Amino acid sequence: MKSEKISELTTSRLSVYLRCLNQLAADGERTVSSEGLAKKFHLNSAQIRKDLAYFGEFGVRGVGYYVDELRDHLTKILGLDRPHNLTIVGAGRLGTALADYYRAAQSNFAVAAMFDADPAKIGTLVGKVEVFDIKNFPEIAERYNIDVAVIAVPAEFAPAVLQQITVSGIKAIMNFAPVPLKAPENVKLKTVDLTISLEGLAYFLAQPSPQNGQRR
Amino acid sequence: MKSEKISELTTSRLSVYLRCLNQLAADGERTVSSEGLAKKFHLNSAQIRKDLAYFGEFGVRGVGYYVDELRDHLTKILGLDRPHNLTIVGAGRLGTALADYYRAAQSNFAVAAMFDADPAKIGTLVGKVEVFDIKNFPEIAERYNIDVAVIAVPAEFAPAVLQQITVSGIKAIMNFAPVPLKAPENVKLKTVDLTISLEGLAYFLAQPSPQNGQRR
Repeated sequence: MKSEKISELTTSRLSVYLRCLNQLAADGERTVSSEGLAKKFHLNSAQIRKDLAYFGEFGVRGVGYYVDELRDHLTKILGLDRPHNLTIVGAGRLGTALADYYRAAQSNFAVAAMFDADPAKIGTLVGKVEVFDIKNFPEIAERYNIDVAVIAVPAEFAPAVLQQITVSGIKAIMNFAPVPLKAPENVKLKTVDLTISLEGLAYFLAQPSPQNGQRR
Repeated sequence: MKSEKISELTTSRLSVYLRCLNQLAADGERTVSSEGLAKKFHLNSAQIRKDLAYFGEFGVRGVGYYVDELRDHLTKILGLDRPHNLTIVGAGRLGTALADYYRAAQSNFAVAAMFDADPAKIGTLVGKVEVFDIKNFPEIAERYNIDVAVIAVPAEFAPAVLQQITVSGIKAIMNFAPVPLKAPENVKLKTVDLTISLEGLAYFLAQPSPQNGQRR
């Protein structure tokens, strides 16, 4: 497997392919062509072939892909062949909502610990997950073997939280605070901007085509 | 302006450019080249030129782009030159967290009303926004001139909620329920999958490069 950098867009597409393959496996399908996959899930077959070819020769001429085999490959490529221990920093509405979400999603990401600075929240449980004092981050992160952190604190606290997380050696961080953060070079930081998705909808509403019409 | 369909990726990039231009304007910059924009915000200058050229000739040879002019254009292209009235369906942890988020983001999307089916939540306020009975969706959506709806209900209720929303004439919907939904043809539906972003982080952690090293 090549270890060069591939883009976040590519990993997002691989995640989508994996979901589609899981669906096909659940439907009892054993093989699928790139065209079949593209048609069923509204994807681009050339893009599928290009994305997968990057990681090796998975397709079989005249057959397409073996669903189970490709699932296993993608699972491994995406690092989903082992569980990840997640922490959510910020036990407010967004943090607890995300804890619910990741529990319900039954993914490979188990919320192992949460953190907050508010004495009223420290020591409480969110689901079955304890909220710890952010001051004790390094010790708790090590105890729970945390490898991914989610920042769900108000924007003004996010830079300090990022600092606390990275000095503890966490290398993968997802930031929900609506503020641009700069992570050290060897740390992967993704900022999720929930307003950008809304702006895509506004673009759609702004189009003059009659079928995209305004409400009234 | 062309009215053909452009991809969601393109509108996302336009949103990002607009954020960058807002930052430049706040810093007092009056002009910027595509290279300058790319360098400062870690973007791709050829992509910027291609994306903007699609909508017209904004750049001036030897000058680049006028920051304020390009902001105005992008704002208009993205349909952000008028406010949008948002509703969030689901007043649980995720719905209320999103209401907080969009209020704090000071965007063009004002949360005008929320909905739930739980009698204990109906009639309460989230911030200053009232939670209405989902049964009264059509009437309330019209009263508040809602044009964008966010679905933040558990997966099992999402299809029914989508149905209720679309029969009321809402054309733009963002779905946070972890379930694939199928919208009518003239409705723009975006599903936000918060697990896909985590999987991109797992990919990064799975890379063998020493600088991407595991925690221990």
